[in-house]
Amino acid sequence: MSDTIKTKKEIPYKIYLEEKDLPTAWYNLRADMKNKPAPLLDAKTKKPLSYDDLRPVFCDELIRQELDDTTPYIPIPQEIRDFYKMYRPAPLVRAYCLEQKLGTPAKIYYKFEGNNTSGSHKLNSAIAQAYYAKMQGLDGVTTETGAGQWGTALSMACAYFGLDCRVYMVKVSYEQKPFRREVMRTYGAQVTPSPSETTAVGRKILEAFPGTGGSLGCAISEAVEAAGTLGNYRYVLGSVMNQVMLHQSIIGLETKAAMDQYGIKPDIIIGCAGGGSNLGGLIAPFMGEKLRGEADYQFIAVEPASCPSFTRGKYVYDYCDTGMICPLAKMYTLGSGFIPAATHAGGLRYHGMNMTLSQLYDDGLMEARTVKQTEVFEAAEYFARIEGILPAPESSHAIRVALDEAIKCRETGEEKTILFGLTGTGYFDMMSYEKFNNGVMTDYVPTEEDLARGFEGLPTV
Amino acid sequence: MSDTIKTKKEIPYKIYLEEKDLPTAWYNLRADMKNKPAPLLDAKTKKPLSYDDLRPVFCDELIRQELDDTTPYIPIPQEIRDFYKMYRPAPLVRAYCLEQKLGTPAKIYYKFEGNNTSGSHKLNSAIAQAYYAKMQGLDGVTTETGAGQWGTALSMACAYFGLDCRVYMVKVSYEQKPFRREVMRTYGAQVTPSPSETTAVGRKILEAFPGTGGSLGCAISEAVEAAGTLGNYRYVLGSVMNQVMLHQSIIGLETKAAMDQYGIKPDIIIGCAGGGSNLGGLIAPFMGEKLRGEADYQFIAVEPASCPSFTRGKYVYDYCDTGMICPLAKMYTLGSGFIPAATHAGGLRYHGMNMTLSQLYDDGLMEARTVKQTEVFEAAEYFARIEGILPAPESSHAIRVALDEAIKCRETGEEKTILFGLTGTGYFDMMSYEKFNNGVMTDYVPTEEDLARGFEGLPTV
Repeated sequence: MSDTIKTKKEIPYKIYLEEKDLPTAWYNLRADMKNKPAPLLDAKTKKPLSYDDLRPVFCDELIRQELDDTTPYIPIPQEIRDFYKMYRPAPLVRAYCLEQKLGTPAKIYYKFEGNNTSGSHKLNSAIAQAYYAKMQGLDGVTTETGAGQWGTALSMACAYFGLDCRVYMVKVSYEQKPFRREVMRTYGAQVTPSPSETTAVGRKILEAFPGTGGSLGCAISEAVEAAGTLGNYRYVLGSVMNQVMLHQSIIGLETKAAMDQYGIKPDIIIGCAGGGSNLGGLIAPFMGEKLRGEADYQFIAVEPASCPSFTRGKYVYDYCDTGMICPLAKMYTLGSGFIPAATHAGGLRYHGMNMTLSQLYDDGLMEARTVKQTEVFEAAEYFARIEGILPAPESSHAIRVALDEAIKCRETGEEKTILFGLTGTGYFDMMSYEKFNNGVMTDYVPTEEDLARGFEGLPTV
Repeated sequence: MSDTIKTKKEIPYKIYLEEKDLPTAWYNLRADMKNKPAPLLDAKTKKPLSYDDLRPVFCDELIRQELDDTTPYIPIPQEIRDFYKMYRPAPLVRAYCLEQKLGTPAKIYYKFEGNNTSGSHKLNSAIAQAYYAKMQGLDGVTTETGAGQWGTALSMACAYFGLDCRVYMVKVSYEQKPFRREVMRTYGAQVTPSPSETTAVGRKILEAFPGTGGSLGCAISEAVEAAGTLGNYRYVLGSVMNQVMLHQSIIGLETKAAMDQYGIKPDIIIGCAGGGSNLGGLIAPFMGEKLRGEADYQFIAVEPASCPSFTRGKYVYDYCDTGMICPLAKMYTLGSGFIPAATHAGGLRYHGMNMTLSQLYDDGLMEARTVKQTEVFEAAEYFARIEGILPAPESSHAIRVALDEAIKCRETGEEKTILFGLTGTGYFDMMSYEKFNNGVMTDYVPTEEDLARGFEGLPTV
């Protein structure tokens, strides 16, 4: 397909948009969807939740964005655009060295979101959410974090706007990543390993599962509870919700603008998928074209074999959190009680998937694949040694499939253009790299029984 | 001074040179110096060392560069320029947010070298040195590393060219930064804490100083010895030498090119100084103009109060390493036996200073200041919360003085243009940040007796 594109300019190793070309509005993919994602439901009444229902938990403007499935472009406030300018545009990289080493006729591009202190794309939404919290006059926000990237991003954003920040960090990550906590503290945040004794839901989970390493679902429950008890606070979150995917559309918008400047059209677009926000953000403007019938692309979501919500989950209403405090969302899910084995490294450990992506996947508009973590770290190390960047384990899921596709092109001779999202860096994941380097990393694939246990807790709607 | 400059274009938050505008040659500042740096001497004969004398230890082409004090521009081989394109240009950042927060009329710029996996400017020289080692047909290289940035950079460079890499890491850093080792291993390097039992000089030092945390000078001795015993290996190093400063001129060349595009002229140029290569690289083209009488700038080297080679050292011939294996260099030095207290965090712990910078400082062409580490971390945290980037402790020495100068401008109303080098990120320095966050970081300033002990070991030349 890319054969038909005339490349007018020589393509540099890295394409940086000029400041004047940066997006001024986020793109709301839902506006272009015929089948809209299903509404959030009240966990008790099973009725759709309104703006007013959600106000005790979420920031007002963020609720508006969450519920808005008709406005295609939502302006980015100037204060957020100014912050974006400190670390954006993110480079769109042509992986010349990787192509050469692979001996593939494929053209490989990646959008690198790791050039900021949070180490990932999470900052794109964190600064937006902190801004709206500040504008609402709140004292602070609470949140959960898994691998720690979201918590770091939110700490940075809150420091910038002078908001208090309370982070519940999944205990297994808290222990695997002692220095992540210190980065968050350096930005002034208060970090608590979850489950903790500081909330009723935490105490309940600790009683039921003593010694548990925690889960995102459990940390969410604690953060939501804490927001309610602290007073002038709200709960914010780094993935899964449509508002987050909206903010992350900055990734795809910049990517598309950069590609358009050079007449590049990707054939395959690949992203890792945990809660789904980076993948959703990357593909948004391309998927919009597909939905409007203007162009076609192959989209591939890559998820860990240990937490396969797209490929082995059910598309049903489920709790967003373990404590069942949050609204019900219709999504591909493994059940809110599902927790990947402790051998699973890094993030992408959430039991469900963003509602918009779930609908698109159910409509057959995108594919999903699973990869095992040893394959992922193998790809990560290979990539690091050639392209220099030490990737996050999460991002390396996308690298794995990009390599696989590029190798296929070598075999078939196809000159496909492959684009993937390199969402972050692995500087705080060295314990996992160490396991891989020492040859003691193992793979986990849930059995049918494991999955059945997760599905047992699904609500009846 | 900057008042007279007409700014024609609006200055973005970040200036990225286009690929076509990247430097194609390094700038050799020595060519423009009337008083050349003094030659390296043989430690035994006290006679100047020739190309042939140095060949057993160093790579051939790097010796040529080391000894060349007349050629102003040395072309950058295409293979190195291709690698540079994977992580360069480094952005020149206008610190709009910092200026606003400080309420200063000063204009603050920093050249940010931390956007690569080594986390610092060190990669600029590592890739050059690995390239010349590869071209010479060597099997591998040995080196020392202090804070770990140089070792990481060299590991990356060696992985890229398929060279074996052996790193001797100062033991106190090895213990403070367990994950640095893992990054190096991920890039295929072999890392040994120094002093070690693997070399004669290491064993000798361990016997004399059991339990020592090591020093750069000691790690250098081990790496040089190892290169000799391994066979087809050479020793390479990440600072101090003139060849390194030559490669680091890419920092200053890019900075000057970016500033020239926007008609910006700095009044003050600030850099941290350990071995001196980043500072030397940043100031090189500006100092060249000063030497040629084309322009004037104020240059400030910032060093830790705990290791004050410029401000409290002597300008004499000294050993480059603790084991006295290396040549003698004329430099500002605290004596090769000087080791900063174990409370000293991070790098900038070398006992001497680059020979070229030493000569310039002695000629009154630049200033030097010391700062204490608690002041440095205070500046680091302040900077991180405003500009987003979590800086390396080393780089934060420059931040400290840049803040001080900007605050002075607030008091005097002067609209000075301040440029500083932000050499790297602090992701692997969280143990030091933790000490600071917990209020248990202390300052160390050597007493006159401490210094006298270091001077005792100076050779007679």
